[in-house]
Amino acid sequence: MTPTITAFARSPDRGRGLARDMRVRWALEEVGQAYDTRLLSFDEMKQPAHLALHPFGQIPTYQEGDLAIFESGAIVLHVAQTHAGLLPEDAKARARAAMWIFAALNTVEPPIIEREQARYHERDEPWHEARLPILEKRIRGRLEQLSGRLSNADWLDGTFSAGDLLMVTVLRRLDGSGILETFPNLCAYVARGKARPAYQRAFEAQRAVFTASQG
Amino acid sequence: MTPTITAFARSPDRGRGLARDMRVRWALEEVGQAYDTRLLSFDEMKQPAHLALHPFGQIPTYQEGDLAIFESGAIVLHVAQTHAGLLPEDAKARARAAMWIFAALNTVEPPIIEREQARYHERDEPWHEARLPILEKRIRGRLEQLSGRLSNADWLDGTFSAGDLLMVTVLRRLDGSGILETFPNLCAYVARGKARPAYQRAFEAQRAVFTASQG
Repeated sequence: MTPTITAFARSPDRGRGLARDMRVRWALEEVGQAYDTRLLSFDEMKQPAHLALHPFGQIPTYQEGDLAIFESGAIVLHVAQTHAGLLPEDAKARARAAMWIFAALNTVEPPIIEREQARYHERDEPWHEARLPILEKRIRGRLEQLSGRLSNADWLDGTFSAGDLLMVTVLRRLDGSGILETFPNLCAYVARGKARPAYQRAFEAQRAVFTASQG
Repeated sequence: MTPTITAFARSPDRGRGLARDMRVRWALEEVGQAYDTRLLSFDEMKQPAHLALHPFGQIPTYQEGDLAIFESGAIVLHVAQTHAGLLPEDAKARARAAMWIFAALNTVEPPIIEREQARYHERDEPWHEARLPILEKRIRGRLEQLSGRLSNADWLDGTFSAGDLLMVTVLRRLDGSGILETFPNLCAYVARGKARPAYQRAFEAQRAVFTASQG
């Protein structure tokens, strides 16, 4: 059964692949699962029909027959658990791959999102400039620890997994910030992720939505 | 094989059960799995021996034979997947329970943590007072959506699951803030979680650590 995901009709990132549907598209491409996409305007995302699917009014959602889930981490984990290609065979290595999914989303991403939130919502506040170094220091602290753990390995725990997929998409949110660049091994790690054919197919698919919306 | 978890030797919450080992203790109590606890000082958490186990230098960690993982969400998911009692049998219901784990940790918890961070680290900044309403508004927005979805149900999706366990611990972080109190169904939901015998055993176990540290 072909699953359907939701995505922004007009992504605020202008097709740079930073919206969270990118993670799900990439996962589906890695496991070779075709999917349909339903595009939503910002207005539609706040309507009862969508809130029934996603109580927090966001994208992506994932529907497959009568299963409907939200949260990009949960969707990627579900795709990984129901298809081969994104989790190792060994039970312990699977638990560690799931651990890296949580580390990406709960430990590394939150300070990155905080910086984005400050830039969107507190840009005109008198404290904005003074707070930026505090926010960047928190991000750098996490990246330093992540960089130390990755060391010179290709992926976080042996072969590429759903944990790497999420971590690469989280680190990509720093594009243009100048923060990631001081960690060469993390830059190379992100580049390895982006070089994967499945990443590139997913990126083109989301980019095509933005290009079409510009008509 | 009895797993070993790590926890604070002196929890900064003074035994109120807000540290993340509480989640893991509660999960282990729900499934009836005995465990050992290894207590760490703040200094020990930053030493190489612990960083090898947890690259971000935090607690809890979980060790079971030669499996070692960190991230409370990943640990609870692992416990739930390897024992009966925290996930439904049906595959779709299991995917939805995992979705609520991610919703608790990635959607509901981040704005709550942001408020804590501001109170710990920016209390003396000139903007502190002016930012608090912004932070509370973000939390209330999420709670309003969560409250709407929970409605008058006992649990988020049928029977109690690991998703509820995480959500209750996340909402408990608002203790004393006065924010949760405007959502009576969420207060009742937290109270239902706290009334579970497994919660109470876990709470007493973490509280005993704090009490002993005061001895």
